[in-house]
Amino acid sequence: MSHAPTAALSARHSVIRQALVEQNLDALIVTSLPNILYLTNFTGTAAIVVLTASAVHFITDFRYVTAVADLAGAANRCPELDLVKVDGSYDATLAEFVASLPARRVGFEAAHLTVSRYNWLTTALPHATTSRELIPTEGIVERARLRKDAFEIATLREAAHRLAEVARAVPSEIRVGRTEREVALAVDVRLHEAGFTRPAFDTIVASGPNAALPHAHPGERRFVEGDLVVLDFGGVYDSYCVDLTRTVAVGRATPRAREVHKAVLEAHDRAIACVVPGTSRFAIDAAAREVLATYGLAEAFGHGTGHGLGIEVHEDPRITRRRPSEREIPSGSDAAPDNVAVAAGMVFTIEPGAYLPGWGGVRIEDDVLVTERGVEVLTDVTADLIET
Amino acid sequence: MSHAPTAALSARHSVIRQALVEQNLDALIVTSLPNILYLTNFTGTAAIVVLTASAVHFITDFRYVTAVADLAGAANRCPELDLVKVDGSYDATLAEFVASLPARRVGFEAAHLTVSRYNWLTTALPHATTSRELIPTEGIVERARLRKDAFEIATLREAAHRLAEVARAVPSEIRVGRTEREVALAVDVRLHEAGFTRPAFDTIVASGPNAALPHAHPGERRFVEGDLVVLDFGGVYDSYCVDLTRTVAVGRATPRAREVHKAVLEAHDRAIACVVPGTSRFAIDAAAREVLATYGLAEAFGHGTGHGLGIEVHEDPRITRRRPSEREIPSGSDAAPDNVAVAAGMVFTIEPGAYLPGWGGVRIEDDVLVTERGVEVLTDVTADLIET
Repeated sequence: MSHAPTAALSARHSVIRQALVEQNLDALIVTSLPNILYLTNFTGTAAIVVLTASAVHFITDFRYVTAVADLAGAANRCPELDLVKVDGSYDATLAEFVASLPARRVGFEAAHLTVSRYNWLTTALPHATTSRELIPTEGIVERARLRKDAFEIATLREAAHRLAEVARAVPSEIRVGRTEREVALAVDVRLHEAGFTRPAFDTIVASGPNAALPHAHPGERRFVEGDLVVLDFGGVYDSYCVDLTRTVAVGRATPRAREVHKAVLEAHDRAIACVVPGTSRFAIDAAAREVLATYGLAEAFGHGTGHGLGIEVHEDPRITRRRPSEREIPSGSDAAPDNVAVAAGMVFTIEPGAYLPGWGGVRIEDDVLVTERGVEVLTDVTADLIET
Repeated sequence: MSHAPTAALSARHSVIRQALVEQNLDALIVTSLPNILYLTNFTGTAAIVVLTASAVHFITDFRYVTAVADLAGAANRCPELDLVKVDGSYDATLAEFVASLPARRVGFEAAHLTVSRYNWLTTALPHATTSRELIPTEGIVERARLRKDAFEIATLREAAHRLAEVARAVPSEIRVGRTEREVALAVDVRLHEAGFTRPAFDTIVASGPNAALPHAHPGERRFVEGDLVVLDFGGVYDSYCVDLTRTVAVGRATPRAREVHKAVLEAHDRAIACVVPGTSRFAIDAAAREVLATYGLAEAFGHGTGHGLGIEVHEDPRITRRRPSEREIPSGSDAAPDNVAVAAGMVFTIEPGAYLPGWGGVRIEDDVLVTERGVEVLTDVTADLIET
């Protein structure tokens, strides 16, 4: 397990502290675990961080005290870490700690604090303090996470390389008579053997008509000659997620299967070709969609073209259609004013698909890094139709 | 994949509707996915349910429309299901839908709605309606889920039986020279082969001194003669979670290892022996803790004695110490007024442990069902110390 170096953590803290200054905040309560991992290297499942101008106060319980002491002492230690051990409950400890801080305006992550917890905190706080104000914030740490730093890019590149290796091996698992569930297990074992901590999500193996469901569960269906099989799998490597889809034919593909695969592959290639710093994420989505429309498959592609990858398997940026009714996703400060431009350091999937109810479907997915000059495809394995 | 029968879903809806009447609510917005599964059999990853006195309005997107149509049509169909397809975003669709409802007081799950989403909804709603009120609620569906119904008990019993089978096989994987990671993979493969959809959490294999960390990640450490190895694993079967821990000695156990294992096993047995409807969950925890204290291991047991099992791997009831500063957990209406009594139909773990930094640790965990007259241990496999 490698961790972000101390210098990277310091740089991340600086970015967040700059945002706090801009929003006139004295502290930020971080309750999102992926954000906590980003700021501290902590990989446990329960903690709250309170970041101030001079410290990273780390609230955790018995189970993780030793692990956090290790974080403080390791070569990749989190700078200025101050361990606060949970006494009673997290909420009570947080309320007491925040009350003790010499801070007036304390931000919290509105997208990662429930109404229940917020109501409890606001009730608990006034007992200790009168001038403290809890301020909702949106996406402060997520904005920093949009553009990956050198450690993250190296980790994602390595992870994608390993995932591509798995993808090269997987077609050998596909043959007439095997079930979706058997192949899903085989994929999971290969992910483990390739060094992944765990699958990034439930592996999808969807064959024949089942492939028309973008999120099918692997079942007991046995492959038959001519089936298309959508294989969508991902892994977590050193806490970073990668994600890949290939569609493979059992035996010989039918002419219709070849046609649909060709359309989706062309959409995939066209979308990747237009990735360069400054391109709108909506334009990337539109590029894929336009190709599919020329094949009469516009209606068959119901999901977005891609999603960001990092500590979470679905994060910003979202490569989707522009939806007037949707709230805008927080984006990097270097992005265009309307939060749509992709920028160097972003990592996301490109995964167009075509789903034809009753018939089946095709999806092809790769992971790409936006570079200073263009794009690097991280999942280095052919996307051509494989006939097993 | 089996699903709750329609009659069970109807009964669950009735319980929730009764709670709505008691709280003077016209509708409940359900945003917790486990709660949605409980009410509808839906196993996807994105949906919102709005339950009213006469319908189950089901909001989902493109990816799941076919799956939900299947829910409506299946033998185990969700009664009164009304499909609402997401147009634009979930939040926008929900706001528009709620505005269209002939309802005045609309409850929402305060523990499952973020401040961000709540603020957005309250801003979006007034455009369409003036007399609508959003009311925070706590644990309405969770309270219903506390006591399992016949379908759930049958599912958990079968799942625990399969998990016990895996537990019987796992000691054969333990021998000098193998690594924690290798054995974790072997456990995951066996879980898959035993019919589990996926592990219920990251499998823990913690050997030698690593066993002193209750939530260790499996690493590259190789087992040596005399090690204790804590094996904590669980599986999801038909959407229900079971969880089991055994501690196994590599070769011959040392006298100290035997002593600590004996203490933890006695604590485990004592805690199970006092499970009967009406017992306080704090008393169950205290029973385990008192045994460990007699062995001088009071300080070595830092976590709670158990947690509820069901659609989630950690749910109510929590078998813990009473903590004066903690918010009370919502509990069943049949429970004692102070929300502490366990009741027939509850399923939870009993998992005392002893963790000695630098030396190692022991944990023994079984899953129990509270019956009308006492307790049934669902994980039917010996908890005696196994020397491999």
